[in-house]
Amino acid sequence: MAPWRATLALEMTFSYFSHYSDHVGASADKPFKSTLWRSERLMLGLNCLAPGQEQKLHDHAGQDKFYFVVEGTGEFVVGNDRRVAKVGGVVWAPAGVPHGVTNRGDERLVLLVGIAPFPGH
Amino acid sequence: MAPWRATLALEMTFSYFSHYSDHVGASADKPFKSTLWRSERLMLGLNCLAPGQEQKLHDHAGQDKFYFVVEGTGEFVVGNDRRVAKVGGVVWAPAGVPHGVTNRGDERLVLLVGIAPFPGH
Repeated sequence: MAPWRATLALEMTFSYFSHYSDHVGASADKPFKSTLWRSERLMLGLNCLAPGQEQKLHDHAGQDKFYFVVEGTGEFVVGNDRRVAKVGGVVWAPAGVPHGVTNRGDERLVLLVGIAPFPGH
Repeated sequence: MAPWRATLALEMTFSYFSHYSDHVGASADKPFKSTLWRSERLMLGLNCLAPGQEQKLHDHAGQDKFYFVVEGTGEFVVGNDRRVAKVGGVVWAPAGVPHGVTNRGDERLVLLVGIAPFPGH
């Protein structure tokens, strides 16, 4: 008789389709980040900032980045420019240019973010 | 006396900030495309499809692509999957995987699109 055997089936499902709202989240002490998809070429994700939260100025050597405002209002800095962007606003942060964003509003700020390339994949 | 002289000053301005609505357009015979920014690493633009318009199945060798639905509803195909995506929907079309989209609704379909890398820069 065969010995008792347990089988665990892990099914990995990959989908080409998603909705940003399935990836929104909140973190008490810093902006919340989630990844929708990523490859060596491109990372697509969300940055979610609660009211008062800030993503400090930083830059990415060799990586271009964009933000698209999906919910809320953000005060962005890119290089020497500081601008407020609302829903539908798009921000381009080229490689090496310092950028950051603060949520000075009273609702959450949800940003679609892309970074290319993304060799840390 | 100095001769009459005309000076034409051309000022090229580059901004890190934009709004998608400034780049929306329409084309009678095919989807309208606009570019927000592009580098060798990343192209960020819009695809705008009038009701009934279709972006036929195609693929990009060595380039990953995403769509984010900003206005309207699209019927997307990626690989063997066919799905309807509404505002906030996100679609990932990895390098080499055929993809396309049709606007079967009665309002314009506006898609934020990113392609990485973008060596044709």
